[in-house]
Amino acid sequence: MSETAERFEAHSADHQVALQRFEAVRHESEVLTANLTPEDQSIQSMPDVSPTKWHLAHTTWFFETFILSRFDPGYRVFDPAFAYLFNSYYEAAGPRHPRAERGLLSRPSVDVIAAYRDHVAATMARFVQGAPEEAWREAAPLLELGLHHEQQHQELILMDIKHVFSVNPLAPALQAPRLQVRGVAPPLDWLEFAGGLVEIGHRGEAFAFDNETPRHKVWLEPFRLASRPVSCGEYLRFIEGDGYQRPEFWLSDGWATVRQQGWQAPLYWSCEDGEWSVFTLFGRCRLNPDEPVCHVSFYEADAFSKWAGKRLPTEAEWEVAAAGLPTKGNFADSRHFHPLADSAAQSAGEEPILRQMFGDVWEWTASPYVPYPRFRAAAGAVGEYNGKFMCSQMVLRGGAAVTPAGHIRATYRNFFPPSARWVFAGLRLAEDL
Amino acid sequence: MSETAERFEAHSADHQVALQRFEAVRHESEVLTANLTPEDQSIQSMPDVSPTKWHLAHTTWFFETFILSRFDPGYRVFDPAFAYLFNSYYEAAGPRHPRAERGLLSRPSVDVIAAYRDHVAATMARFVQGAPEEAWREAAPLLELGLHHEQQHQELILMDIKHVFSVNPLAPALQAPRLQVRGVAPPLDWLEFAGGLVEIGHRGEAFAFDNETPRHKVWLEPFRLASRPVSCGEYLRFIEGDGYQRPEFWLSDGWATVRQQGWQAPLYWSCEDGEWSVFTLFGRCRLNPDEPVCHVSFYEADAFSKWAGKRLPTEAEWEVAAAGLPTKGNFADSRHFHPLADSAAQSAGEEPILRQMFGDVWEWTASPYVPYPRFRAAAGAVGEYNGKFMCSQMVLRGGAAVTPAGHIRATYRNFFPPSARWVFAGLRLAEDL
Amino acid sequence: MSETAERFEAHSADHQVALQRFEAVRHESEVLTANLTPEDQSIQSMPDVSPTKWHLAHTTWFFETFILSRFDPGYRVFDPAFAYLFNSYYEAAGPRHPRAERGLLSRPSVDVIAAYRDHVAATMARFVQGAPEEAWREAAPLLELGLHHEQQHQELILMDIKHVFSVNPLAPALQAPRLQVRGVAPPLDWLEFAGGLVEIGHRGEAFAFDNETPRHKVWLEPFRLASRPVSCGEYLRFIEGDGYQRPEFWLSDGWATVRQQGWQAPLYWSCEDGEWSVFTLFGRCRLNPDEPVCHVSFYEADAFSKWAGKRLPTEAEWEVAAAGLPTKGNFADSRHFHPLADSAAQSAGEEPILRQMFGDVWEWTASPYVPYPRFRAAAGAVGEYNGKFMCSQMVLRGGAAVTPAGHIRATYRNFFPPSARWVFAGLRLAEDL
Amino acid sequence: MSETAERFEAHSADHQVALQRFEAVRHESEVLTANLTPEDQSIQSMPDVSPTKWHLAHTTWFFETFILSRFDPGYRVFDPAFAYLFNSYYEAAGPRHPRAERGLLSRPSVDVIAAYRDHVAATMARFVQGAPEEAWREAAPLLELGLHHEQQHQELILMDIKHVFSVNPLAPALQAPRLQVRGVAPPLDWLEFAGGLVEIGHRGEAFAFDNETPRHKVWLEPFRLASRPVSCGEYLRFIEGDGYQRPEFWLSDGWATVRQQGWQAPLYWSCEDGEWSVFTLFGRCRLNPDEPVCHVSFYEADAFSKWAGKRLPTEAEWEVAAAGLPTKGNFADSRHFHPLADSAAQSAGEEPILRQMFGDVWEWTASPYVPYPRFRAAAGAVGEYNGKFMCSQMVLRGGAAVTPAGHIRATYRNFFPPSARWVFAGLRLAEDL
Repeated sequence: MSETAERFEAHSADHQVALQRFEAVRHESEVLTANLTPEDQSIQSMPDVSPTKWHLAHTTWFFETFILSRFDPGYRVFDPAFAYLFNSYYEAAGPRHPRAERGLLSRPSVDVIAAYRDHVAATMARFVQGAPEEAWREAAPLLELGLHHEQQHQELILMDIKHVFSVNPLAPALQAPRLQVRGVAPPLDWLEFAGGLVEIGHRGEAFAFDNETPRHKVWLEPFRLASRPVSCGEYLRFIEGDGYQRPEFWLSDGWATVRQQGWQAPLYWSCEDGEWSVFTLFGRCRLNPDEPVCHVSFYEADAFSKWAGKRLPTEAEWEVAAAGLPTKGNFADSRHFHPLADSAAQSAGEEPILRQMFGDVWEWTASPYVPYPRFRAAAGAVGEYNGKFMCSQMVLRGGAAVTPAGHIRATYRNFFPPSARWVFAGLRLAEDL
Repeated sequence: MSETAERFEAHSADHQVALQRFEAVRHESEVLTANLTPEDQSIQSMPDVSPTKWHLAHTTWFFETFILSRFDPGYRVFDPAFAYLFNSYYEAAGPRHPRAERGLLSRPSVDVIAAYRDHVAATMARFVQGAPEEAWREAAPLLELGLHHEQQHQELILMDIKHVFSVNPLAPALQAPRLQVRGVAPPLDWLEFAGGLVEIGHRGEAFAFDNETPRHKVWLEPFRLASRPVSCGEYLRFIEGDGYQRPEFWLSDGWATVRQQGWQAPLYWSCEDGEWSVFTLFGRCRLNPDEPVCHVSFYEADAFSKWAGKRLPTEAEWEVAAAGLPTKGNFADSRHFHPLADSAAQSAGEEPILRQMFGDVWEWTASPYVPYPRFRAAAGAVGEYNGKFMCSQMVLRGGAAVTPAGHIRATYRNFFPPSARWVFAGLRLAEDL
Repeated sequence: MSETAERFEAHSADHQVALQRFEAVRHESEVLTANLTPEDQSIQSMPDVSPTKWHLAHTTWFFETFILSRFDPGYRVFDPAFAYLFNSYYEAAGPRHPRAERGLLSRPSVDVIAAYRDHVAATMARFVQGAPEEAWREAAPLLELGLHHEQQHQELILMDIKHVFSVNPLAPALQAPRLQVRGVAPPLDWLEFAGGLVEIGHRGEAFAFDNETPRHKVWLEPFRLASRPVSCGEYLRFIEGDGYQRPEFWLSDGWATVRQQGWQAPLYWSCEDGEWSVFTLFGRCRLNPDEPVCHVSFYEADAFSKWAGKRLPTEAEWEVAAAGLPTKGNFADSRHFHPLADSAAQSAGEEPILRQMFGDVWEWTASPYVPYPRFRAAAGAVGEYNGKFMCSQMVLRGGAAVTPAGHIRATYRNFFPPSARWVFAGLRLAEDL
Repeated sequence: MSETAERFEAHSADHQVALQRFEAVRHESEVLTANLTPEDQSIQSMPDVSPTKWHLAHTTWFFETFILSRFDPGYRVFDPAFAYLFNSYYEAAGPRHPRAERGLLSRPSVDVIAAYRDHVAATMARFVQGAPEEAWREAAPLLELGLHHEQQHQELILMDIKHVFSVNPLAPALQAPRLQVRGVAPPLDWLEFAGGLVEIGHRGEAFAFDNETPRHKVWLEPFRLASRPVSCGEYLRFIEGDGYQRPEFWLSDGWATVRQQGWQAPLYWSCEDGEWSVFTLFGRCRLNPDEPVCHVSFYEADAFSKWAGKRLPTEAEWEVAAAGLPTKGNFADSRHFHPLADSAAQSAGEEPILRQMFGDVWEWTASPYVPYPRFRAAAGAVGEYNGKFMCSQMVLRGGAAVTPAGHIRATYRNFFPPSARWVFAGLRLAEDL
C-alpha cells in the first residue's frame, strides 16, 4: 500500500464520508453558477479565461478519466468526444482542444454538461460506496485530489466570469450588490521575525498538492512583515505619485508591459471626473480606500513595494509567519466575492498582530515558482498537475475572497505569470531587519 | 418628394401591404434560427463572423434607428446601450462596439433580444399603420431598405452559423440531413454573346441598392459563357492536378495566401483515406461531384479558371447574359441550404441554355467592386450602406442556396474580399470569342 | 519570328545601338547610388523596401538569368547562390530568399555586387555585339525589357533609400539641398472631355509592358479634369478641416488604416510648433504649399477628392486626356528627386492647359489594376512580370520626380496597394460633366 | 568616500595601471571586429541581436555618459544625437532608440563610430592621467565597471555576429577554420558535495557586479555534480530518443516553444542525409560528439536533464563547487570561439575532478535570476545595470568560449530568458545524494 493511500485512509476510512464530501464540493460548483445564463457560461473573454461550462465539464472529466475509467470496470464514458474537449493540459491523457478556442464551442450545451455532471456524479456515488478495497486505496487519494481540483476551478469560475462581465458594456453582475461591510483599514504595523534556519513545506497526513513537498530547510535573514495587506488608499497614493509614469520603480519587463498595455491603475479600476470606481462581481461601485488593493500584477506589486521603500516577502518568509495562524478569513463561502477591510478592532496598547494572511487577496511573493529541493512529481498523468509549470511564474500565498474556505493552508503555493491581473491578487510589504 | 419615395409609393401605396411584408420577412429570421440554442447564438468563430443573436438585434436596431427614432415622435428606445452594441459600421450613427468583439457579449441574452425584436415589431406595426403621409413618404423607402437589409443578414446568419459549427469537433447541424436530391450535372456547354455597346445597372421603379445604379453603357468584346457553374468533380481534377501546388495558376496574393493558410481544397472539404467529404448545415457528408463547387475564394476561382485555360466573366458580361432570365433557383426558401446539381434534364438536340445563374452558388466575377460611373451614395447614414466598401473587394453575382428568394435580381452586386471563403461562392467559366 | 521580336528589330536593328543603351541605363544605376555608403545600401527599413545593393544585384540577375544563361552557351554564372538571393518573385525561376529578409544579408558586400555588375556587363557587351541573329531575335526584346526593368528599380532605389533615411533620427540626405526652384502653383482650371467610345492601351512598335496591351475600346461619359495636381497648400486645408478625423470622406478600409496607423498627414510630413516640414532626399525642409502633394496613399487621395466634392479620374479618362501630350516634365534626370511647382507661366486670357501630367508625382486613379480585355501575359518566366499582381492594387499614371525620363508614356500603368505611401504619389481631381 | 571606491583604490591606486587596462580592453574590441565589413556591422538579424557597430558605439557612450560628461568639466560630447541612439536601456539617461530598430540605422557609419571611439579614448586617456583625486575616487569604479561592461559586449558581439552570419545562405565566417583540436570527452564522473549551511556571493575588494552581492548564507542538501558538461554525443542520444517529441520531459512553456518554433535540435545544428553539422564562427562543420553541447535553451537543458533522470544544479550548488577552482579554460582569448572537448587526460585510478567549470559553455542552472537577500542596486543610472532584469530569467554560470578571459569568476551571475538559444550555453548535470 502506498504511503499516500495510507495517509488518506487514516482520516477517511469511511467511504461514506468521502461521498458526502464529494457531493458537497460538487454541489458548491452548481450553486456558484446558478445565476449564470447559458450565454454567460459560453464566453471566453481572453485566452487565459475559460467558459464556465468548460470548467464544469473539465472538473467532471477529471473524475471520469482518472477514477471511473481506471477503477470502475463497467464504466462507459458519457461521450468519447469529451476526452478531447475537456482535457486541460494533460499530455499523457491524449490530444486536446486548443485552450484559446474554448470559447468557440457552443456545444455541448450547458444542459448537456449538466447531464454529464449528473451522470458522472451518480456513477461516482455508486463507485465510492461499493469500491473494492484495492481499487479504493488507489482511487481515494485521486478523489481527494479531484475535489481540491474542483475547488481550484470554483475560484477560476469566479475570476473568469468577472473578466467576462467586465468586457461587456452592460456591466452585468453575478449577484445583487451586497450591503457593504465597509470597515476601516487598521493602522499599518510591522511584526519582526528572527529568521535563521527554518523549515517550510508540507508535512503530515493531511492533503497537500505535490508542489508543497517535501518539507525542507531554508536559511532566512531577520525580517519584518506588515500587519495587513496594502490598501486601495495606499495604492492610490502610488498612482497619484505618478507611479505608473516613473520607470525607476519597475522591473524592465514590468515597465515594458505598462507601456504596451497602457496600464494606469489595477485591472477593473476606472476614474471618471476624478472619482475612482471598481468593477466587482456585484457591479461597478465606488472605490473603498480601506479595502485591500486587488487585481494587481506581480509587476505592480513589486513596483509599489519599491516606491514604498520596502520589498515583497519571499514565500519562505510568508510561510514561516503564517505557520501558526488559523486559516480563517473572507473566503468564497462568505459570498462577498470581494476583499474587505478588516473590521476586527484592535484595542489600544495591544500588540500588533498579522491580519488577513488568509482570504481577501492572494499575496504576491518575491519567489519564482520552482520545485522545492528533492521535489518529486506525483506518478502518472496527475504528475503534470503542478511540476511542469515551474518556470516563469511567481508564487502567491494565502487565498482570496473567491477561494473556497477549507481549500487553503499555510503551505499552499499558488502561482501565476508576473503579468497576470485577473487573479484576486494584492500584496503585503516586507523589509529587512 | 424624393424620387426614391415616389418609386416606392407607386408599388406599395397601401401601408397594409408594407406591414404584411415587414412581418413576413421578420418572421423568416425567427424561423431560420429556431433550432439554435442560446449558446449557438452567442459564438463568434472568427472576426468576419457575427453571433446569430447579434444579427437578430442589429437588423432590429436598423428599424429602430433609421425609422422609429426619426419618424415616430413618441418612440422610446428599448435600451440606450443597444445603439453602441448593435451599430455595425455606421460612423454617422455614433461610436460602436468593435466588430471582432461581438462574441464576447453574453448579455443581452437571446431572450432579451427576442423581447427587443417584439418591442420594435409591435411599434413598427403601429407606426406603419398610422404613419402620417409626410413621414411615410420618407420612411417607406427606408422600411424597404430595412427589409432587404434583414434578408442579407438572414444569409449571413446561415453563413456564420455554418462556420461556427464547423470549428466544433462535435460537428453540430442546423437541421436533420435532407433526403438528398443528388441530380447529375448536365454536360458543360458554351453560350456565345456578341458584346458591343451594352447597358448594365438598375433602372426603374423596383427596389435596388444604390450600388446597382445608375444604369450605364459598357463596351464588351464578344465572349462565351459556360452553361453551368463549375462542379465539385471538375474542381477535384484541379486538386488532383496539383492545382494547389503550382504557382503558375495563381495571383501573387492568392499564392501567398495558399502557402500561409495551408489551403489544399475549398473550405469545409476534407479528405480521409482518399474519400472526400464536405461539412454542410446538415452535418458532414460525402462529396457529390455533380454539385456546384462552393466555398472557394476569388483566388481559387481565378486559379481554377487559369488551370482550365479559361477566365472568369466580368460582372458586365454576367449581367448581360442574365438579364432576360427568370430569377428562379435553389434559394434559402427551399431549405436545402446547400448547392445542388441541376436536375432539369435537357433533351438531346436542344440548344444549350444558361442554368443555375440564380441560386446554388454566388459566382465570383473578374470585376473589382467599384462605383458605377456617376454613382451617388444615398443621403444620410444609410449612404454608408455600400459606397464606402468599394475598394479591395470583388463582385459576385446571382445569389446562393442560402439567399432568400425574392432578394436577388440580375443587377444585384454582392462583394467580398478575394480571400473570403465562408461565402457560399463558386464560379462559372468564361472565354474570349 | 515572334511579333514582339519583330517590333524590336524594326527600331533597333543595330546591336551597337542596343549596347549603347544598355551601358547608359546601367551607368545611371551607378550614378544614382554613388553617394551611398555600404551601410546605407544594406538596410531594409520595412518589408516593402529593399536594400540598394539588392536592387543593384537583382537587376543584374535579370540579365544573367533571362539572357546570358539562356542565349550565351559559354556563360558561367558569377555565383550560383545568387539565383536564390536575387530572384525577386519569379516562381518559374526557382526558390528564393524571403522578401522581408533582404535586409539580413551583409554578404555579398557592396564590393562583390559591383564586381557582379561588372562581370555581367562585360559578358553582356560581348554577347550583344556577337550574338547570332537567331538568339538575338529572342534576346533583344528581353534586353529591352531588362532595361525598362532596371529603370523601374532606379525609381525603387530612390523611393527605398528615402524611406531608409527617414527612419534614422540623424535624417541623412542623398545629396546636398538644391537651390530650390520654388515656383508658384498656377490657378486650378478644369478641362472638359467629351468621352464616348474611346480606345486606350498600347499599340505599335515601340516598347511597352504587357499590361498596357491590348489596345481596346472603352465607353466614357463626359468628364472634366483638373489642370494640375493637387498642391500641398490645398491638401493642408483638408488637414486643417479635420480631414483625418472625419470618417465620412473615407473608404472603410482607409478609415481603419488611418486609425490603426495614426495617420495625420502624408508620409514624411511633420508639424512642429505649427510649422510644417517635409523630409526629402536632400534632408528635411520647410513645406512648400505650391508643390504638388506627394506620398499620399490611394485612401488619402480618394478621401481628399471626396472632401473637395470631386473624384479621382479613371485610368481611361487619364489616358485619353494624356494621349496627345509630350512626355516632358520633372523626372529623375533633373536630379531634383522632389515634385516642384510648375514654373511655366500662363498668360492671361489663354486657354487652360493640362500641366504636369508627366513627372513630379504619380497620380492615383480610381481604377483597380485588372487585365485589359483579351490580355495575354508574355510567355515564360517574364510572364510573371505583371499579370500575377492584378488584384487588390490601384493604377497610377504619369511618372514622378524619381522616374527616369524616357521610361514613361501615356499608356504606362503603375500599380500599388491602396495603403502604399512611400511611392512618390499624389493626385489630380476629376468630375462628371 | 564610498566603500566601492575604497575597494577599487586599494588595488588600482595608480592611474597609469587603469589607463593601460582601459587601452587593452578597448583594443580587444577592435581586434575582434577587424574582419567584419561595414555591412556585417550593420545587420540586426533578430530583436535580441544588435549590430556590431552599435555595440562598439554603445560601450563608448557608456564611458562618455557616466564618466566624461560627469567628471570632465571641459568635455564636449562627440555628437548630441548619440545619447539617443546608443543608450541601451538606462531610463534615467533619457529617451532612446527602440532596441528592435537598431538594424535600421545605416548612419552613423562604421567609420564615424571608429572616430567616436578614438575621440572618447583620447579624452579618457587625458582624463585618467590627470583626474583630480576627488573626481577619480568616484570615476575609477565607474571606469572599472565600464571595462567589464565592454567585455560583456565583446561576448555579445561574437554571439550576435554568429547569428547574423547564420541567417545568410552564404554562411560567412568570422575567421578561417581552425585546425581543430578534436580531443576526446573524458568519461562522465560524479563528484559529491555535503551541502549544509554554506555561503555564496561576492566578498572582498576585487571587482564584482552588484548582482553578485551581498555574500549570504544558503542551506543546501547533499548533492552530486557531473565532472564535465553534457557532450554533443550525449545530447544526440536525447534527440535520437525522440526527446523533442516527448512532452513528458518538458516544462509546459518549453513544450509550447518546441511546437511553435519547430525545434528539433540545438540552434545552429542541422542534419542532412543523416549527417549532423554545426554552424560556427569559422563556418559550418561536422558535429564533434565529444564537444560540450552548446546553443541550447534552458528549456532544452532542463528537458535533457529529466530525460537523463537527473536535474540541473542550482546556482548555489554550482558556486560552492566552483569556489576553489582556478578560473582557467577555453575563453575568447584562445580565439577558438567554440567549445572544445577537454584534452587534458586523466590517469587511471585518479580521483575524478571537476572539468570545464569555466569557459567552453555557460551552464544553465535551475535558479531563476532573483536578487540575493539584502541586495541593493548601485546608486544612479548604473543601478539599472542588473537589478531591473531580475524577473523571468534563469542564471547561467562559468563563462564560455566567447567570454573574455579575466571577465569571469565563481560568483559571476549571467542571466537569459529560458528560451534564449543564441547564447553559448550548455549544461552540467546534478543529482540529489
